[in-house]
Parts: sequence; structure tokens; C-alpha cells
Amino acid sequence: MKYNPQRIPTKSDIQQASIRIRKYIHRTPILSSENLNSLFGCQLFFKCENLQKAGAFKSRGAVNTVFSLTDEEVKNGVCTHSSGNHAAALSRAASLRGIKAHIVMPDNSSKVKIAAVEQYGGKITFCSSTLESRESTLKKVQSATGANEVHPYDDPRIITGQATAAMEVFEEINSLDILMVPVGGGGLLSGTALASRYFSENTKVLAAEPKQADDAYRSFKAKTFIPSVSPNTIADGLRTSLGNWTFPIILDNVNDIVNVSENGIIEAMRLIWERMKIIVEPSSAVPLAAILENTFNHSEKKIGIIISGGNVDLSDLPW
Amino acid sequence: MKYNPQRIPTKSDIQQASIRIRKYIHRTPILSSENLNSLFGCQLFFKCENLQKAGAFKSRGAVNTVFSLTDEEVKNGVCTHSSGNHAAALSRAASLRGIKAHIVMPDNSSKVKIAAVEQYGGKITFCSSTLESRESTLKKVQSATGANEVHPYDDPRIITGQATAAMEVFEEINSLDILMVPVGGGGLLSGTALASRYFSENTKVLAAEPKQADDAYRSFKAKTFIPSVSPNTIADGLRTSLGNWTFPIILDNVNDIVNVSENGIIEAMRLIWERMKIIVEPSSAVPLAAILENTFNHSEKKIGIIISGGNVDLSDLPW
Repeated sequence: MKYNPQRIPTKSDIQQASIRIRKYIHRTPILSSENLNSLFGCQLFFKCENLQKAGAFKSRGAVNTVFSLTDEEVKNGVCTHSSGNHAAALSRAASLRGIKAHIVMPDNSSKVKIAAVEQYGGKITFCSSTLESRESTLKKVQSATGANEVHPYDDPRIITGQATAAMEVFEEINSLDILMVPVGGGGLLSGTALASRYFSENTKVLAAEPKQADDAYRSFKAKTFIPSVSPNTIADGLRTSLGNWTFPIILDNVNDIVNVSENGIIEAMRLIWERMKIIVEPSSAVPLAAILENTFNHSEKKIGIIISGGNVDLSDLPW
Repeated sequence: MKYNPQRIPTKSDIQQASIRIRKYIHRTPILSSENLNSLFGCQLFFKCENLQKAGAFKSRGAVNTVFSLTDEEVKNGVCTHSSGNHAAALSRAASLRGIKAHIVMPDNSSKVKIAAVEQYGGKITFCSSTLESRESTLKKVQSATGANEVHPYDDPRIITGQATAAMEVFEEINSLDILMVPVGGGGLLSGTALASRYFSENTKVLAAEPKQADDAYRSFKAKTFIPSVSPNTIADGLRTSLGNWTFPIILDNVNDIVNVSENGIIEAMRLIWERMKIIVEPSSAVPLAAILENTFNHSEKKIGIIISGGNVDLSDLPW
């Protein structure tokens, strides 16, 4: 969908999305750990989207988009290309609406993610892992089926859905100094930044990104879009580049972007598993890695972190 | 403390404990998974005490007991022998009250559990791993320090504290058919059974125990106390035998006890990690293992499960 500044999600869009998706998603808990608070000298509040349906915040945007489309628009189902959580979330949302989901997945996708899509009834077409192959395969699937494309992040309905996670944070935790999220394609980040502007204007929004996939960091600093070139990070959810909707929203509404090392991500991930007793995927650990690596002044601050997802292959852990 | 049927915890004891401990513990979330529900054909509600302070329900009983003692009783601190979660929970409760905790731990205790006790300021005395050595070392520590012993489970104040977890379940989930907990020494089980009697009399209380540590199962069936002899189960929290308080309460108030295999425990543990995205220790997986192994008719039932704890050595997983 082409960028249109007139259609940037509004406060009312987010509130309506929250009502639209309510019965299809979990209101996830916000957890804290006195242990981590004392370790880092700040107050941390973790919004646990790893406990969300299909294991990630992606269910919010997918459900919001699928249930925003008209009957005519979904009569041939929906489609997307994704190797990750959006694929499972879209398959689940489609099955809730009783329509088909056609998913183009790279043939090197993890078994766990393929199984999740199949479990929710998504119809998979495999392709090779380059962006070109993904896009051309999706075009073929689309012209063969007439399915409506639901982009993983570069769509205002997706951004609106993802914004509901931050809205819930602001409903429960007052006067956060900072709200942190990881950034890949920027759907969660742009939604979070808009929610902060509408519901908690004194909260700063801070994004964290792996150094080895730092297109958002570099684009934000240069104020011009610089795509990722073969990003190579353990945080598999963050290898995508910003989009034509997410980048301008981020430029206008995000306070800063910081970046972190691969070791920092693994160490933060293990800390969350050990101290919080929750399973988070590497992408989810990137904001805590930014605290661990002192990339900004977090001392004594009240900080929210959106834990983005929990889909991990338990037979292939990084320690 | 000697058993006294007149002092079995009452409804009002549990309500008062809930107020006493409120500011020192988490009100843990109750999570569910459509995925597991459809896999097992029943509705499951997981009360997540793995997300409790110090990573286990043990914090409830420890805080309740430590804050029930008089200033005179705690002037020389508290003591216990425990290789597990009670040791950390008691250390934390003591530090909250500003008193010392003397912990006797077998020298083969896991590094993670030792570190947890140290982190909360507990003073450790190591002993060998036999029950005799644990008890005689504790006696020495007690006579040297004058500390007040807080037993891990065989004490009405501990049982009362553990009962608050089930009370919270009944406050949030109506008309449960069954509430399941694992059983080791029986503190959680006897508290849960009393809470069910007082707050949800139509709910059946069902305990699950490893076949390789089945003293509670055998004692319950024989209606006479049969202690464990060198139990050998991966569920390290369940190797203890019932006590002189917990056994009679269990006999009078628990509907049934079922037992499960070691493979069932590991499979159920992995299922919870993968599908629920939470970290649970083997003991916590024992009730789900009982469903997995069809030890009772769970079809279409509304079943609560208290997830007892989440303290696991992430470098030593059973898969």
C-alpha cells in the first residue's frame, strides 16, 4: 500500500482496533523482576507478547487487518511472504475469519515456524531465501489465487494493530519514562511511537536494533532510508528493513534508536529466561541488551519493554 | 511442630494470610493456550507460580510464616534444611523482615539453587545429602544460633501460605471441575485441598506424583504413611515424603492421586515450554504429564493446574 500521510493511524483507529481484536487475542500480562531491577538500577516492566496467541505481537496486526477487510476483499483469502511470526499470525487470523491464507516461505525457514503455519491451516509455497524470490513467488501465488496481500509491517492496519500493545502498557503503568521495543521492519516500533504520542506523551520511545542489522539505526541518524544488506544476526525477527509507511512515522515519533552486539543479545536473552522464567526469542532480548550494554542512561528510570515473541527452537539454543 | 487437628488452617486463616503476604509476593497470572486445549480436548488454566518471587510458590508459605512469628521468636533468625526452592524463599522472606536465615544444604545441591540462596542473603551450611546428615546438621546450626526452624511443608503456617495460590485461582476462574497440583512433601497439595473445600467445594483436587517418588500415592491408597525410599526422579522438588500435618489433611480433603512416568514429565515440560512460552521446572510438569498419559478422564473438563516453580539450570536441559 502506498504511503499516505493523511492515513497515519489516529488515536481513534487504535482504540477501535483494540475493540476489534479483543476476543481473538490475549491481553498479555506485564511482569517485573526485583532481581533484574536491582541488577540494572532501574524499574523494568515487561509486556509479555511472547505469551500472545501464536507466540508474538504479530497476532494483533494480523487480526486487526484480516477483520478490517471487506467480505469482497477476502473472498479469495489473504497472502504474504514471511519466514517468521507474521506467517503464523496471519494463518491463525485467516482461519478465525474462515478464509484461506497463502504463505510464501523461504525453504530455509525453521521447522518450528513451518509447523506453526501448518498448524493454523496456512497453505505454504516454498521459495528460495532471497527477497527477489520471495517477492516474485508471492506475485505468482497472488495472481493464481486472487488473494489479498497482507504485508508483515508496511500497512497502516498492521501498524494500528501493533499499537494496541503499547496502549495496554499505558493503561496499566503510569508515567513511564521510556518505552523500548526492538526494530526490524518497524511495524511494532511505529505503532508504539504513535500510541505513546496519543496516550502517554511524556514517555520517550526508544528502539533497539542489532548492530548486525542496523538499517533502522543508520536510516534514523541519516534521516534517509538505507536498506539492510545481507543482515546476519541471531535476532531473526529483525533482519528486515524499514518500509515506506514505517520509516516516516518512526522519523517523526521515535526519540532514539540504539544498537547492540550479538553477545549482548544472547546474554540478555539468557538473563530473561533465568530471572523472568519466560521463553523469549532473541529479537525480544534486544532492548534489555541495550540496557546491559549501557547504550543510554537508564539509571533510576521507569522503563517499559515490549517482549516481542517467544518462538524458539528448543533444540537449538545459543548457549 | 506436632500435629494438632484443632489447628488445621481455617478459611479465615487463609484469607488473613493472603492479606499478610500481599505486598511481598506477586499475584501471578493464570495463562491458557488454545493450542494445548485442542491437543488434550479440555480447558486448561495454568496458575503461574513459576513467575512468583524467587521462582516458586514456596515464597507464599515462607513469607506467611516469617511474618507470623513474633519479634521474640525471630530474634535469632530462622533456619531450615532444603536443597531447593524453600531455601531461597525463606532467605528472601527473612531478608524482607530484616532477620537472618541459616540454610542447611546438601553439598550436591545445584549451583543455581545455591546461588539463589546466596543472592537473598541466606547463610549456607553444607552437609552430605542423606536425611540424617541434613537433620543433624540443622540441629547443630539451631543450637549454635538459636534460630527458629521453618519447615519446608510440615507446618500449618506454611500450608496456609501455599493455600493462597488456589484461593487466587478460585477468585478468577469459576466452576473448575478439577484443580491439579504436584505432590512432594504435600504443603502445596494440602493447602490447595483446604482452599478448595472452603472456596470452591465442587472442584475436585487431584494430585500428580512421579512413579519414581510415589510415597504420597502409596500412602493415600493404603491410608497409612509409607515414606519414600531413595526416590530417583527428574522432578527434584518432589523427592520428599509427606509429613505429619500434610498426610492427614490430604487423606481427608484430596479426591485422588495419580502417578506418571519420567518420560511423561519430560515431554509435558517441553510442551509447556514450547506452547506456553514459560519456563517450568520438571516438578511443575507432573500434572500435565498425568493428562498426557491419560491417568484420569480429563475429556471436556475445566481443569486448573498450579505450576509450582521455574528454577531450572538452563545449561542442563533434559532434551
